[in-house]
Amino acid sequence: MADVASTVRSAGEAAAADARDVLAFARERFALPDGVVYLDGNSLGAMPVSVPAAVAHAVTQQWGQGLISSWNGAGWWELPGRLGDRLGALVGAAPGQVMCGDSTTVQLFQAVSAFARLTPGRTTIVTDGANFPTDQYVAESVARLLGMRLVRVSPPDLASVLGDDTAVVSFSAVDYRTGELWDTTAITEAAHAAGARIVWDLCHVAGALPFALDEVGADAAVGCTYKYLNGGPGSPAWIYLPVHVQDDVDLAVTGWNGAADAFELAQHYVPAPGIARARIGTPSILAMAALDAALDVWDGVDLADVRAKSLVLTDLVLDFASARLATHGVEAVTPREHERRGSQVSLRMPRAYEVTRALAARGVVGDFRAPDLLRLGFAPLYLSCTDVWRAMEVLEDVLATRAFDDPAYVRDAAAAVT
Amino acid sequence: MADVASTVRSAGEAAAADARDVLAFARERFALPDGVVYLDGNSLGAMPVSVPAAVAHAVTQQWGQGLISSWNGAGWWELPGRLGDRLGALVGAAPGQVMCGDSTTVQLFQAVSAFARLTPGRTTIVTDGANFPTDQYVAESVARLLGMRLVRVSPPDLASVLGDDTAVVSFSAVDYRTGELWDTTAITEAAHAAGARIVWDLCHVAGALPFALDEVGADAAVGCTYKYLNGGPGSPAWIYLPVHVQDDVDLAVTGWNGAADAFELAQHYVPAPGIARARIGTPSILAMAALDAALDVWDGVDLADVRAKSLVLTDLVLDFASARLATHGVEAVTPREHERRGSQVSLRMPRAYEVTRALAARGVVGDFRAPDLLRLGFAPLYLSCTDVWRAMEVLEDVLATRAFDDPAYVRDAAAAVT
Repeated sequence: MADVASTVRSAGEAAAADARDVLAFARERFALPDGVVYLDGNSLGAMPVSVPAAVAHAVTQQWGQGLISSWNGAGWWELPGRLGDRLGALVGAAPGQVMCGDSTTVQLFQAVSAFARLTPGRTTIVTDGANFPTDQYVAESVARLLGMRLVRVSPPDLASVLGDDTAVVSFSAVDYRTGELWDTTAITEAAHAAGARIVWDLCHVAGALPFALDEVGADAAVGCTYKYLNGGPGSPAWIYLPVHVQDDVDLAVTGWNGAADAFELAQHYVPAPGIARARIGTPSILAMAALDAALDVWDGVDLADVRAKSLVLTDLVLDFASARLATHGVEAVTPREHERRGSQVSLRMPRAYEVTRALAARGVVGDFRAPDLLRLGFAPLYLSCTDVWRAMEVLEDVLATRAFDDPAYVRDAAAAVT
Repeated sequence: MADVASTVRSAGEAAAADARDVLAFARERFALPDGVVYLDGNSLGAMPVSVPAAVAHAVTQQWGQGLISSWNGAGWWELPGRLGDRLGALVGAAPGQVMCGDSTTVQLFQAVSAFARLTPGRTTIVTDGANFPTDQYVAESVARLLGMRLVRVSPPDLASVLGDDTAVVSFSAVDYRTGELWDTTAITEAAHAAGARIVWDLCHVAGALPFALDEVGADAAVGCTYKYLNGGPGSPAWIYLPVHVQDDVDLAVTGWNGAADAFELAQHYVPAPGIARARIGTPSILAMAALDAALDVWDGVDLADVRAKSLVLTDLVLDFASARLATHGVEAVTPREHERRGSQVSLRMPRAYEVTRALAARGVVGDFRAPDLLRLGFAPLYLSCTDVWRAMEVLEDVLATRAFDDPAYVRDAAAAVT
């Protein structure tokens, strides 16, 4: 598909593009409910078919029969680091620099609080005022904890707030609301030119597009695994700490798994060498077993193909929206330039909440972001152009027939989860 | 069994005690490998038979078919709080005061760092120099983070270090090495008399003996769920924050799940009311599904019966050790007084590491704690007096025949996991 022009303007062109899809083989690696076009893989990825048996094995054999001996015998102790290397390979990190575990929140806290304390005199933390709430909350909390100043700025405007008091910058590579992809290389260089450290949140990057963490030169990165990496609800997060920072960071949350000789159960904390210092407490093995199996869907997959297909799918949506949905008050907030786009498209429209629910009732699953966005995520491993074309036609129908007026779709309390 | 004298001094007396065991019905709620006497449930509890189907359902139905809609439709969003209340009921906490999630390390960090910052002028943190490494590491890290002083003292000697500079005391209720149970009520009162806050680590209490958190008056408590609560390897931890402290604590690790209106995705962190502020990032639903099913083993179980049986089992071991193992250089380090004992017995002996391995090769699974302890944990729901009597006879045989001399049992690297 990488070789075709990224124009799909009819059901026929969608079918033709699918016929050339070099990633078509991956669809059967996922289970999806019949009749559903799932455009919420940027929130919770679909279930890889390899997961149930792997989890069952971890439960009944490794735990039930192996019991405590499985910490060594089944490789549980090595699992967080092994998964870290697998995840690192998907975001351009050489081995020994990524550790899997805990939540994105905890990993962000580790990275930001470590760099916030690294250089005396640097007393400002920078984040993006449109960043995902967790990222902003962690920056706020670390600033409060350490008596530092917090500044919010949009990533392209970083230079305007950088100074010799900037300790650490915490940005997301893709805006979770608009789907805009920032120029992580240029922004990282700007931070470094000011002597600051930078932490990238790659939640909306990992598994969605190629990324070159080592080349970008980030001081740290974090990400979840339950979106485009399909690890399951609340699956473990990860942290990237490149070799050149590993010995310098004092990670605040210190558990026995991260100690130099964990099994000596020593009184004073000495961090383990290398990325192992990023281990914290005892990790959920069942959650990691699910993730380990889920990562098998990437076998034989070239992320360049994933990116090419993602752009075809998101171009399709942007083209469709401008050609056929503008008349219904729909406006795309996701940039048209490929280099400024992640793997989602957010459409601003009146009654976006009710539209999201009307779509779901018709088997097209996206999500709503307050106050007026329908957010659609595109996972190239399990979506075809035909799927996405059909979803757009359903959306057009919902808007044209005002199906969103149905009282069944009025807003209730807990509407969406990132 | 609560009505019998706690003396089991022969295989016949063991069988007789088992015949009167009011908890015998619980054994079939667990799967255990054939021929194994599992005395390591204080490290990783056995697998409840209800777990595999519950986890499979969460994977294939809730995730695979329900996808994102399961956050509401399958109750995922409410799961951490619902599990918190279930866990609270097992440690004497009224509903609305326990939240499930993350690791014991993270929860300890939250509690200790919150109380460390609560009162200006109180600049000392106290922990136990024999506390589990994680507990000491967290205290060390918080002291370093906030520029505070750290003092180590054995719990019974707390009064000797308390002063008007003491901010927070962090102790475990049961010494993980010796199995000694501290007088948590008296120690809590001493801390409070000095104006300090106290955090209890109940990892070796929850599911092992009755506890009355609300009555003890702890300011916070934490615990894991993979030992006597049988939640599976690395299953989620929990934190107890009683109603009277909930509004006062600034929990350092702030994720969007803990915000007042999480789904508004607001820019500034306002903690949710009540115990919901103890939520952090997105929790592992698969791990929580396993725990939820595992907690069903407590249906119809009276913790007073658990305690009574635990004391019979540990008395058996202590009696056997003094009567028949002392000649082999074995000495119990666990107190004989019932009120000073958790649900484990630690036996000091020469070549303890090799003895532990020789036992395991014979189907008796305990663990080794450096330098010279064989640590045996007793989970009354799945162990009988006959099981434990047999284990003691195997131990006697290993010692008498010097089976531990077998070169196969020489120490290797990663020997044991708590």
